[in-house]
Amino acid sequence: MNHLISTASLSVEEIKKILSQARSFLEGEQWKPTEQQFIANLFFEPSTRTKSSFEVAERKLGLEVIPFDAGSSSVLKGETLYDTVRTLESIGVNAVVIRHDKDQYFDELIGRVGIPVINAGDGCGHHPTQSLLDLLTIQQEYGDFKGLKVAIIGDVRHSRVARSNADALTRLGAKVVFSGPKEWFDEEFLENGGYEDVDTAIETSDVVMLLRIQHERHDGSDTGVSENYHQQFGLTIEREKKMKPGSIIMHPAPVNRNVEIADELVECSRSRIFTQMKNGVFVRMAVIKRALDKQGGMQSVNTHQKWTIAN
Amino acid sequence: MNHLISTASLSVEEIKKILSQARSFLEGEQWKPTEQQFIANLFFEPSTRTKSSFEVAERKLGLEVIPFDAGSSSVLKGETLYDTVRTLESIGVNAVVIRHDKDQYFDELIGRVGIPVINAGDGCGHHPTQSLLDLLTIQQEYGDFKGLKVAIIGDVRHSRVARSNADALTRLGAKVVFSGPKEWFDEEFLENGGYEDVDTAIETSDVVMLLRIQHERHDGSDTGVSENYHQQFGLTIEREKKMKPGSIIMHPAPVNRNVEIADELVECSRSRIFTQMKNGVFVRMAVIKRALDKQGGMQSVNTHQKWTIAN
Amino acid sequence: MNHLISTASLSVEEIKKILSQARSFLEGEQWKPTEQQFIANLFFEPSTRTKSSFEVAERKLGLEVIPFDAGSSSVLKGETLYDTVRTLESIGVNAVVIRHDKDQYFDELIGRVGIPVINAGDGCGHHPTQSLLDLLTIQQEYGDFKGLKVAIIGDVRHSRVARSNADALTRLGAKVVFSGPKEWFDEEFLENGGYEDVDTAIETSDVVMLLRIQHERHDGSDTGVSENYHQQFGLTIEREKKMKPGSIIMHPAPVNRNVEIADELVECSRSRIFTQMKNGVFVRMAVIKRALDKQGGMQSVNTHQKWTIAN
Repeated sequence: MNHLISTASLSVEEIKKILSQARSFLEGEQWKPTEQQFIANLFFEPSTRTKSSFEVAERKLGLEVIPFDAGSSSVLKGETLYDTVRTLESIGVNAVVIRHDKDQYFDELIGRVGIPVINAGDGCGHHPTQSLLDLLTIQQEYGDFKGLKVAIIGDVRHSRVARSNADALTRLGAKVVFSGPKEWFDEEFLENGGYEDVDTAIETSDVVMLLRIQHERHDGSDTGVSENYHQQFGLTIEREKKMKPGSIIMHPAPVNRNVEIADELVECSRSRIFTQMKNGVFVRMAVIKRALDKQGGMQSVNTHQKWTIAN
Repeated sequence: MNHLISTASLSVEEIKKILSQARSFLEGEQWKPTEQQFIANLFFEPSTRTKSSFEVAERKLGLEVIPFDAGSSSVLKGETLYDTVRTLESIGVNAVVIRHDKDQYFDELIGRVGIPVINAGDGCGHHPTQSLLDLLTIQQEYGDFKGLKVAIIGDVRHSRVARSNADALTRLGAKVVFSGPKEWFDEEFLENGGYEDVDTAIETSDVVMLLRIQHERHDGSDTGVSENYHQQFGLTIEREKKMKPGSIIMHPAPVNRNVEIADELVECSRSRIFTQMKNGVFVRMAVIKRALDKQGGMQSVNTHQKWTIAN
Repeated sequence: MNHLISTASLSVEEIKKILSQARSFLEGEQWKPTEQQFIANLFFEPSTRTKSSFEVAERKLGLEVIPFDAGSSSVLKGETLYDTVRTLESIGVNAVVIRHDKDQYFDELIGRVGIPVINAGDGCGHHPTQSLLDLLTIQQEYGDFKGLKVAIIGDVRHSRVARSNADALTRLGAKVVFSGPKEWFDEEFLENGGYEDVDTAIETSDVVMLLRIQHERHDGSDTGVSENYHQQFGLTIEREKKMKPGSIIMHPAPVNRNVEIADELVECSRSRIFTQMKNGVFVRMAVIKRALDKQGGMQSVNTHQKWTIAN
């Protein structure tokens, strides 16, 4: 069963294969299952970007997307996530995409349900498709990961992305450093990269990856930190000027403008922020194809065939 | 106009015809309207299973499903249900599926709107597609209803399913008995079946149909009942051992595990709980086809035709 | 870029062209883009009718409609409307339909985003598709606007429709008068029509256009007005009897029955209320085609082609 739970659970080979498939989709490859297939997006946390991105990816693959509103679901009647997924499986849904605020929510599903689970974010844990789209964006830029220096700056403690990316980038041959408020830095990150002051990190890296301050995950105690955040740790106009030639800026979005990054830089020539969003659709197509393609009875019947009215 | 309001409004012949059509769909029959058709699911109460099941059924029939969010609809502006349905009719919707917390909500629609109404549950009243999927599940098991004994156990007072099923099963030739807390038993059920103590009911029936305790419909006064419910009236591991050979367990779900039924029994070999869910899709396809097929201009053009990319 | 922001921004020629295209769609013309196209409906205010009407229009054009739930979107995380729309653009959405409670919300979008914006209502400002469907309904009835007298009666101060309609009708050659509670009448309307007492307006107009009392936009201070509203300013059964022969009744709906109009008159022979709703779908198809058709790579490939299973 080709679940996608975390990038840590993917070998370097698997990561490269997914990126390669995503690039093919980006270049116009078409793939649709030979029979009508159903998918459901179970988002128990708010999200525009990730949910819409999955939705577009699913429609591009010709899938039927079954709406699921967590707010009006039987989960309100106390139903477990396992029973919800088994229900969807029973009515013919072929795969589920899940975002949940509980860390490792998937532990109650893997090995027990008969359809693939694609993790769209669990608590402060993993967010593999975000990680994969980041990797695709870097790969588009540099071709290879070996020898690259990537700075991950900001709210690393609450970031799903930081964990996934640090792990994958290290295995792919890049060097990762963390920066931002030191009290948000976690010992557990040390295995994938050390801490560096923000000016050094920004001036010496090929990729400056900014993280969103997750106000909604912080309790009130550290709001003092964010007030001066932009000057202390943000990508200001001054810091951008000292970046390495050709280096790029990334951010998972939504951006807090003038906090993590100066408003004027969001769409500057170094920025790959909207490119990341675009890449997300193609990475998700690759991940969904990987999940459905192993279920048998499906083949890539129309590779490189143009989308026509008849579809 | 082929509305579906209640099983009581269906003759035995009509019930059998719907079950037969559902079995055909289950075996792979394909039917799609010859022109683009629109349907809307108006759910004024939360539901995963019923709504998703209708949604899958509608997509399998190639219908365009127009999203309807009761929470953000003009009903908030004080619009009547009649005006809402007439609006949908005016913009080209060909049929509506409605779940509403008001008993007999459909009285303000029938004879006044020009499109078929499919009842997906009204208050504590009817829930005909649940009833039909239960009948299909029993028919799959036993072929015929004559001579079967069916025990309906639990919260009969608040159950739409109990009413619909008792009525239909009796007319189809089965014997129905009720069990569970006696204070939940209602005199009005007597015409379709007597009351039996729970141990006798479970040990002597071919079908043990458990009902969900509808916590959300009980006021606080009888919560004492549910605390010891599992031991007193639930399908415990001990009671299951005394069931007749070959007899089956059913439950409309969502299940309160270890209340109506022991956790371990939900997916045991006697259980048809997930089979019921699967059957629901095909019963709903049959009911929707019945509603749309009479509107003229539509025929079963592609019976048994394989689903292809071109669709 | 063929945005649709207001009727004021449309020339008389453009209005006539949209109405003409809408009539063609009403008569059965088919148009679909040659490639898969995506659209999203961003409704930040509740609406059944407008949202569903757009949805049906979009499906009739064969578009993929990406669901967008304002209540669970990243707007909750403080994202700007600009960033939301740019995100949708980045993931491949080809056009957006927006309803927002903020007047002129589109000022932060026009000239900055790369996809067309269709305004489905901004605050108390504009609502061009409602206006266009009203125009289509009048045109169907009278062929031409020249010499017609149109009375707009009711809550003109809070009405998006009043502003749009008065402007467009005047330019098309009709005479507009306003009526209703004088304290709701606004000096700024004077350029497009004077104030007339309600009995004169109703008795002498070809089109009696009633407006909805927007309870949700009034503060408590003027509820006294609405209590006697029906007798003082509503279309009572008595007033309808004095209407000109052949004159028609319009209302944007949802109707407050027995406030703006007597319950019995909502579906009387003069009423075009449900016709307006029907027309709304075809006007929206025309507006969306206009938005997408200019983006290049798309042509009307299947004009007048019958909808077939293969689509």
